[in-house]
Amino acid sequence: MATIDINADLGESFGTYSLGNDSALMSYITSCNIACGFHAGDPRVMQVTVRLAKKHNVQVGAHPGYPDLQGFGRRRMDMAPEEVETMVLYQIGALAAFCRVEQVDLRHVKPHGALYNQAAKDPRLAIAITRAVARFSKSLVLVGLAGSALVAAGKESGLQVAGEGFPERTYETDGSLRSRQYPDALITDPAAAAAQALELAREGVAIRSGKQFQRLAVETLCIHGDSPHAEVTAAAVYRALEEGGVELRAL
Amino acid sequence: MATIDINADLGESFGTYSLGNDSALMSYITSCNIACGFHAGDPRVMQVTVRLAKKHNVQVGAHPGYPDLQGFGRRRMDMAPEEVETMVLYQIGALAAFCRVEQVDLRHVKPHGALYNQAAKDPRLAIAITRAVARFSKSLVLVGLAGSALVAAGKESGLQVAGEGFPERTYETDGSLRSRQYPDALITDPAAAAAQALELAREGVAIRSGKQFQRLAVETLCIHGDSPHAEVTAAAVYRALEEGGVELRAL
Amino acid sequence: MATIDINADLGESFGTYSLGNDSALMSYITSCNIACGFHAGDPRVMQVTVRLAKKHNVQVGAHPGYPDLQGFGRRRMDMAPEEVETMVLYQIGALAAFCRVEQVDLRHVKPHGALYNQAAKDPRLAIAITRAVARFSKSLVLVGLAGSALVAAGKESGLQVAGEGFPERTYETDGSLRSRQYPDALITDPAAAAAQALELAREGVAIRSGKQFQRLAVETLCIHGDSPHAEVTAAAVYRALEEGGVELRAL
Amino acid sequence: MATIDINADLGESFGTYSLGNDSALMSYITSCNIACGFHAGDPRVMQVTVRLAKKHNVQVGAHPGYPDLQGFGRRRMDMAPEEVETMVLYQIGALAAFCRVEQVDLRHVKPHGALYNQAAKDPRLAIAITRAVARFSKSLVLVGLAGSALVAAGKESGLQVAGEGFPERTYETDGSLRSRQYPDALITDPAAAAAQALELAREGVAIRSGKQFQRLAVETLCIHGDSPHAEVTAAAVYRALEEGGVELRAL
Repeated sequence: MATIDINADLGESFGTYSLGNDSALMSYITSCNIACGFHAGDPRVMQVTVRLAKKHNVQVGAHPGYPDLQGFGRRRMDMAPEEVETMVLYQIGALAAFCRVEQVDLRHVKPHGALYNQAAKDPRLAIAITRAVARFSKSLVLVGLAGSALVAAGKESGLQVAGEGFPERTYETDGSLRSRQYPDALITDPAAAAAQALELAREGVAIRSGKQFQRLAVETLCIHGDSPHAEVTAAAVYRALEEGGVELRAL
Repeated sequence: MATIDINADLGESFGTYSLGNDSALMSYITSCNIACGFHAGDPRVMQVTVRLAKKHNVQVGAHPGYPDLQGFGRRRMDMAPEEVETMVLYQIGALAAFCRVEQVDLRHVKPHGALYNQAAKDPRLAIAITRAVARFSKSLVLVGLAGSALVAAGKESGLQVAGEGFPERTYETDGSLRSRQYPDALITDPAAAAAQALELAREGVAIRSGKQFQRLAVETLCIHGDSPHAEVTAAAVYRALEEGGVELRAL
Repeated sequence: MATIDINADLGESFGTYSLGNDSALMSYITSCNIACGFHAGDPRVMQVTVRLAKKHNVQVGAHPGYPDLQGFGRRRMDMAPEEVETMVLYQIGALAAFCRVEQVDLRHVKPHGALYNQAAKDPRLAIAITRAVARFSKSLVLVGLAGSALVAAGKESGLQVAGEGFPERTYETDGSLRSRQYPDALITDPAAAAAQALELAREGVAIRSGKQFQRLAVETLCIHGDSPHAEVTAAAVYRALEEGGVELRAL
Repeated sequence: MATIDINADLGESFGTYSLGNDSALMSYITSCNIACGFHAGDPRVMQVTVRLAKKHNVQVGAHPGYPDLQGFGRRRMDMAPEEVETMVLYQIGALAAFCRVEQVDLRHVKPHGALYNQAAKDPRLAIAITRAVARFSKSLVLVGLAGSALVAAGKESGLQVAGEGFPERTYETDGSLRSRQYPDALITDPAAAAAQALELAREGVAIRSGKQFQRLAVETLCIHGDSPHAEVTAAAVYRALEEGGVELRAL
């Protein structure tokens, strides 16, 4: 029987600015990645989100990103590996403090946005992030794109890793995500997203290269929290997995 | 025999901007308060400073401040107590991560600048800071102005506290610090600073009110790191205390 | 026949964060105050908002605030007058650039949030803001709370000033605004707000002190853009003024 | 007779952080590029620097950079062209306000750091910057690396442009700057820098490609203000140009 985690990026509000509907998603996820104040989130939002996750028994992870609130961490930046390592460590520590006082386990780390995308391809960045995570705690799970350089670096370093799949994103035949520049990059139909979630959970990501075919294992599915129909899609994915006999379990 | 700690605010550089001469002070202090990235400091500076303190066997504390890099945390801000509590907790956690990976004990917390000054007088703020510290760890020492509301709030909550004295600042007769608006607020003569250090270490802060006279206990002395003659003063204070038979020991 | 301006604070979105419904308000206002990137707004939002105002023939003013995005400029800060003056000048200049390239007149300046409130009472701050405005251009209109120190400082310096009134805020008998700490500080009933708008436009703010009674002139009414029923209230105020025979005209 | 401008990047201090020695350089330059608060500088520093330039009769230009104080604008960021255009416009406007109140002409714009380097090669970025400059004022001079995409975009748009040369940087045979990754990228000997300044002023940048040889015109020379021997080098360059019969004149 297949087992999968469903995660979402939460705690992305900032000061007076509200983003996403964290409460509504809580019923359909098994873990969450909480923004740490660099690309989104602030200390109060972090506290509120950790408490919300605790209340719903949803596992907590850190979601470090670039120091770019205006760009929401989605703009690629060229930072030296030492800068990336210390920046990630700083953010993990900040979130860990809220977990500590709320008596919640900090269980995983998933980089955000441009940092996530760059670390999927650039081994130097992947190693820098891995070092921050592993030095903080060898029992943290490192989450990255299934098949990415980040997942490889995590494995290499002895960390437990989790390959991530996206029910709401179109995949290229080589297993990469279709760029958001294209109109069909996002799967907005809840039923289609649910069907893709089930396939990813049961079989992983399909990779075709000529006559070659293989599957990349997926341990966690990411649900987008900031789309207008986030809750409907989350519910559809959740139900499809349950009815499809997939066990939902945090990392 | 009197015992005293000598502390200094370190790690106040930021990015390309360099401030203070942390290495030079290390020989003359027993503990340091490291900026946490809000009013000064950045992740790399924090890492470098924790390592430097470890190398010199100097005790490490967190030095949280207002989110005001331009004002260096010296501009009073009106933040709600919950905002202060979470802001302090965030900064403690961030520094704790660097201590953790460098295997250094985080031993104390001392608020910075306007936050320190406001918490000396405003019990609501003092309680908010105390809550952050105590919830993070009951074994942290809370450092505040000797006789302040912050020290009182720390004691009340069961935390170990340390009253701070200033060899380089002029005291008013009521035991408060003379405002920096006055030209004689700073004691710039190293010998005078050393003499005041010795008196503070042995007898504490003098308080006179009419015919009343009392002493406020001082457990730690703060050496300014950003003055042009910081190292000379630090050395003079250090020697005066040693020669005066005061035991130098971290909190 | 009475004449009044209706203004609203616009351009308060930031990066990925959306705030207010600027388009919807445009039909009911004669001038707008655009955030300048310190407490809210960013360069693209500023450009978009200037263009929107131009399209609707709504007059544009600068809305400078404290450098405190997390607190939305609502947290009091202690800045020296020279800091306030240069900070306000910087923000006026930034918005003026967008007005210039869009060929829109920058006509007024209204401080935001805590800066507005402090400048209503503190003459030093009021003078600092006035200096920035007057040095940038003597033909700008300075907008402040009717009867405030800011309006007084503006008059004193020879600037054209506009006293502001609030249809959606409860007034104390001395003409000040009831603190937002009280549950009845906000007038949420559109009809009541409309009635108050009409009174403010026709007669100004009522001030009672013992048997004394006077009126403070009001030249502009502020409509809140961030309330859930902002558009309904704006429409009600607009209609009440029109039907009441008050001429709506930008400053 | 050759004519050249000597420029330096000034106003790079921030809050309590001091950088460079602007006063010392003023005697040896004919124009300066003032940081606008994104990668360095703050409103008060901008005001002080504009006043200093005015006092020394040194021409003022804007020096816009990425919103990255921690990285001093030297870290490449991926911003959309519309973001770059509005970001540059915002910074020009902010500095223009200080020029306006000090009655100083704002004469040129030179992008900083990573923005400068990216715009030297990426036409999209070069066009975005050019648009901001040209829309603000067609009489501004756009300064870019001699032979760069930025200079080309400026010319194309009808702006007056100035190709920049670097007396303190080693050139590759293709006319590009040797990367700072190499130990010999910087020319630290004042005499060597002075000699290169003279050659750049008289003949421009040498470009060799096989048997082909050409010269790129240089209209302005950049003196580094943040090196330890900045003043000595500036003086040596200045004297070499004077003695070599090159007329020093602002753009």
